[in-house]
Amino acid sequence: MTPGPSNPPGLSLGAGVAVVAIDVGGTDTKRAAVGADGTFVPLETLPTPRLGAAEWVVEQAPAWRAEAEALVGRVDALGVVVPGIVDEPAGVAVASHNLGWRDFPLRELLRSRLELPVALGHDVRAAGVAETRLGAAAGERDVAVVVIGTGVAAALVVDGAPLRAGGYAGEIGHLVVADGPACVCGGRGCLEAVASAAAIALRYETRTGRAAAGSRDVLEAMRAGDADAAAVWQDAVEGIATTLRHLSTITGPEVVVLGGGLASAGNELLEPIERALDRRITIQRRPSLRIAALGPRAGLVGAALLARDLDADHGPGAGA
Amino acid sequence: MTPGPSNPPGLSLGAGVAVVAIDVGGTDTKRAAVGADGTFVPLETLPTPRLGAAEWVVEQAPAWRAEAEALVGRVDALGVVVPGIVDEPAGVAVASHNLGWRDFPLRELLRSRLELPVALGHDVRAAGVAETRLGAAAGERDVAVVVIGTGVAAALVVDGAPLRAGGYAGEIGHLVVADGPACVCGGRGCLEAVASAAAIALRYETRTGRAAAGSRDVLEAMRAGDADAAAVWQDAVEGIATTLRHLSTITGPEVVVLGGGLASAGNELLEPIERALDRRITIQRRPSLRIAALGPRAGLVGAALLARDLDADHGPGAGA
Repeated sequence: MTPGPSNPPGLSLGAGVAVVAIDVGGTDTKRAAVGADGTFVPLETLPTPRLGAAEWVVEQAPAWRAEAEALVGRVDALGVVVPGIVDEPAGVAVASHNLGWRDFPLRELLRSRLELPVALGHDVRAAGVAETRLGAAAGERDVAVVVIGTGVAAALVVDGAPLRAGGYAGEIGHLVVADGPACVCGGRGCLEAVASAAAIALRYETRTGRAAAGSRDVLEAMRAGDADAAAVWQDAVEGIATTLRHLSTITGPEVVVLGGGLASAGNELLEPIERALDRRITIQRRPSLRIAALGPRAGLVGAALLARDLDADHGPGAGA
Repeated sequence: MTPGPSNPPGLSLGAGVAVVAIDVGGTDTKRAAVGADGTFVPLETLPTPRLGAAEWVVEQAPAWRAEAEALVGRVDALGVVVPGIVDEPAGVAVASHNLGWRDFPLRELLRSRLELPVALGHDVRAAGVAETRLGAAAGERDVAVVVIGTGVAAALVVDGAPLRAGGYAGEIGHLVVADGPACVCGGRGCLEAVASAAAIALRYETRTGRAAAGSRDVLEAMRAGDADAAAVWQDAVEGIATTLRHLSTITGPEVVVLGGGLASAGNELLEPIERALDRRITIQRRPSLRIAALGPRAGLVGAALLARDLDADHGPGAGA
């Protein structure tokens, strides 16, 4: 089989139970089946409905399970990850600005519908689990996985343990890092308002009157010598570097992994952030910066790992 | 016995092994003996020598142990806490600006000198342990204990676990919160440069040309209607509130405990911070703010608890 772009060679989760993984995003819902041998098989990505997304997931789940079982055989668990505030121990999707739910008991509804063990996780924290176990920070104990896409958030791992705080940890998109632009949260100068992919496009449009469909357009304008694009990009870089200094001061990561859509810029993002961070670090431990290894699949891989952890939690080798 | 001001009634650590506790500060070294019944007996506070403080602790330890044993009987462990960067699992005092040591293996030197189990901790994280187990945040799982004295640092507890990150977690004194004043770390606008007790006094002196021996003098001038004192105090309040917003965004505490010398101002500190925080919180979980219950003894109580944990770690009820 020739691997497609969404399934590059080499991605295996190792042997374990077969599971279904779902990553409900603000725009799209990604899905995958993972076989007992660890093979990761992406399923078709679907548009997330604007209304009733949580109910839609519950309704579709039996068909998605059947689709996965046709590919990898009987599955033993389902892992689903969602954005916003998520109370993982309770299995509740507490709140999402974009998807509009509130205190939705997603795990219990899926479990009773499918009669299958279900893990509910936070998309970014799950991506953090994936990058820390299989990706760019494998084997590290003090890590921040910073995901910059439509929104911005971080999965924080300290002393080897992911931080939850009832779902409130790692909401770095709402750190104040600039004098400035209004944020959806009601504040001003939040990281998300200067450095999210959407903010970069919007700020370029506002500044120049020229259209930008996304941050990639701004990056391409910058490459072509557009000084406005360079200024908007640099504002994002400075905001991210300020955020990394805050993280270094508070949770002391040794490794910072940059993920999400913006990280596809690679060194054009990484190198200016390295320089901006060097100007800011004083007594903090200077983290090493890396681009995410699992790309846009990190959340989905994390969902599969959470589902597999359910089995491990009940087996003889159960870990904390 | 009539309790003195340093030993108010009611402080008991509960039944356990008898221990010696030492809190090596930048100015003074506090000591206590804790009996098997939990009685906390403060010993005389000694000035910390400017040079060779770590060696001095090792040299004096046998005499301090004898002094404690004369009061509470045979002790089974020693707990010592120090400022700066501390690697607790390794037992090494990594670095202290004020005390001048570097990579000092304090735990091993004390252990071999005394032939006694020794716990080495960080003064602020130990105070956090004490406030979380016996003090203002007893029973809480997501806590920040913010200690504002000569310096500023925080003990962070997330999901019930204290954050270490190799000793780099919680160095909030070096969050940039203001346009402005130079900090000892080499940065500008750090919290410590606007809100530490020393900074409050210095900023008032610089602004007015009038002497202030400490933050208490500034507080008293503010009470007497001095507008400069009020402005300096308000700058500290705003810096602390900005810091609490950063903490809420990154580690999501439900409870923030304010300790250290500045917290002796009680409601004159707490109430303006409550208002300044209300202006800043958007999507973050709004923490409830409390004044520390254990006061300046929190570090010492934490040292005793760490020493007792050594015994628990080897006993049948050993916890994580």
